[in-house]
Amino acid sequence: MTAMQNRKTVRKYIDKNIEDSLLNELFSLASRSSNTGNMQAYSVIVTKNKDIKKQLSPFHFNQPQLINAPVVLTICADLNRVTKWAKLRKANPGFNNVQALTFATIDAIIFAQTFCVAAEEKGLGICYLGTTTYNAKQIADVLNLPDLVIPVTTITVGYPDESVEVIVQDRLPLEGFIHNEVYSNYSESDIDNIYGYKESLPESKKFIEINKKETLAQVYTDIRYKKEDNEFFSKEFIEAIRAKGFNF
Amino acid sequence: MTAMQNRKTVRKYIDKNIEDSLLNELFSLASRSSNTGNMQAYSVIVTKNKDIKKQLSPFHFNQPQLINAPVVLTICADLNRVTKWAKLRKANPGFNNVQALTFATIDAIIFAQTFCVAAEEKGLGICYLGTTTYNAKQIADVLNLPDLVIPVTTITVGYPDESVEVIVQDRLPLEGFIHNEVYSNYSESDIDNIYGYKESLPESKKFIEINKKETLAQVYTDIRYKKEDNEFFSKEFIEAIRAKGFNF
Repeated sequence: MTAMQNRKTVRKYIDKNIEDSLLNELFSLASRSSNTGNMQAYSVIVTKNKDIKKQLSPFHFNQPQLINAPVVLTICADLNRVTKWAKLRKANPGFNNVQALTFATIDAIIFAQTFCVAAEEKGLGICYLGTTTYNAKQIADVLNLPDLVIPVTTITVGYPDESVEVIVQDRLPLEGFIHNEVYSNYSESDIDNIYGYKESLPESKKFIEINKKETLAQVYTDIRYKKEDNEFFSKEFIEAIRAKGFNF
Repeated sequence: MTAMQNRKTVRKYIDKNIEDSLLNELFSLASRSSNTGNMQAYSVIVTKNKDIKKQLSPFHFNQPQLINAPVVLTICADLNRVTKWAKLRKANPGFNNVQALTFATIDAIIFAQTFCVAAEEKGLGICYLGTTTYNAKQIADVLNLPDLVIPVTTITVGYPDESVEVIVQDRLPLEGFIHNEVYSNYSESDIDNIYGYKESLPESKKFIEINKKETLAQVYTDIRYKKEDNEFFSKEFIEAIRAKGFNF
């Protein structure tokens, strides 16, 4: 629990491999997690090879932790395996739809996060790469993903380089995201209370200044998660999903 | 780690409340998890009230653990809060799209699973209800969810009733879902090897017999996850997402 409380995302790793026995222990542990109907509708691609990492790199916008990490895990929603199984067992599968893709994505993320919690308890550091769904088609091409398999996130894993200082990130207060019995929508003063601390932080003020913006929210909407980018990458993601045989 | 290795899904709970202090500790711990750009694009509805549980129950197909559990958590992808924040801070949000819904779903499930791992370490038992995305619209109505908020999973939580025996579920062998460097698609003999153990289990054979089927896969495709049902609930889910203001 202490490891969980004090965790930080780690983007810089020392030059030390992760033993296969440890990786396999963590995979096995993560596979104990809840999943839909015990179908385990996920696959994990373990990339250690430098050439393959280099091929993946531009699709993760060259984030340096991808090359730096000894192990890169591309976590996929996988309806291919269960479909193949069904077809070989005189059964009529129907998993090429949004509902199946949704439960497979949930299975995949539950697996991924259990892996991360256990990895951090073992002294490893991890970083999720949200870029996976931006360039899903290109990533699928590099990793030879077949029909009905969609990459949903990527995790870089390694032993932390302790010489790099990492700030413990702020989080919203509990009343910012916990609702009792039913959803209580946010009033203007609720928003002020929930975001006040985050907005008051020196690093937030620095962020606003560097980016020449007036508010922290503008850094999010004008630079980091622009409406046009979100819409562009939505179209790309939908195309990637359709290209793998889903009715979407 | 031992708690993680020996975990089982718990569907029957003793009549004992969970202290708010423990719940809040677990929520706080789970909020330390990775999330997209530190937006924490999720909300959690904590339901203890029996009347609200009864209203939710039919939409979870009357699974008894919903009423039996002292605490029910409906985990939502939430783009409402960040959108409200942006609008109040002279920023132009663009989070009503598939890409944002995807990262919010991932944030929500990462939070949910960290909560579950920590809850199990504290001696609690949990069960995920996959029915949440089947009846998202109806669940959203009961819980007063506003635009840009979609329920993605539900967790029942309580102290396990140890008098109920729970079988440790089988899992696929690691080679069933781990791929080295790139995806290696499954041959017929791979499928036989991966599913052989599961198919050989007495409970699997019982399942086939009870359901009057020829193969275990048919139990999945003809009864539990029928093509027509998956397609029907895909349409319903897409409608629920559109009804909450997403371009989908």
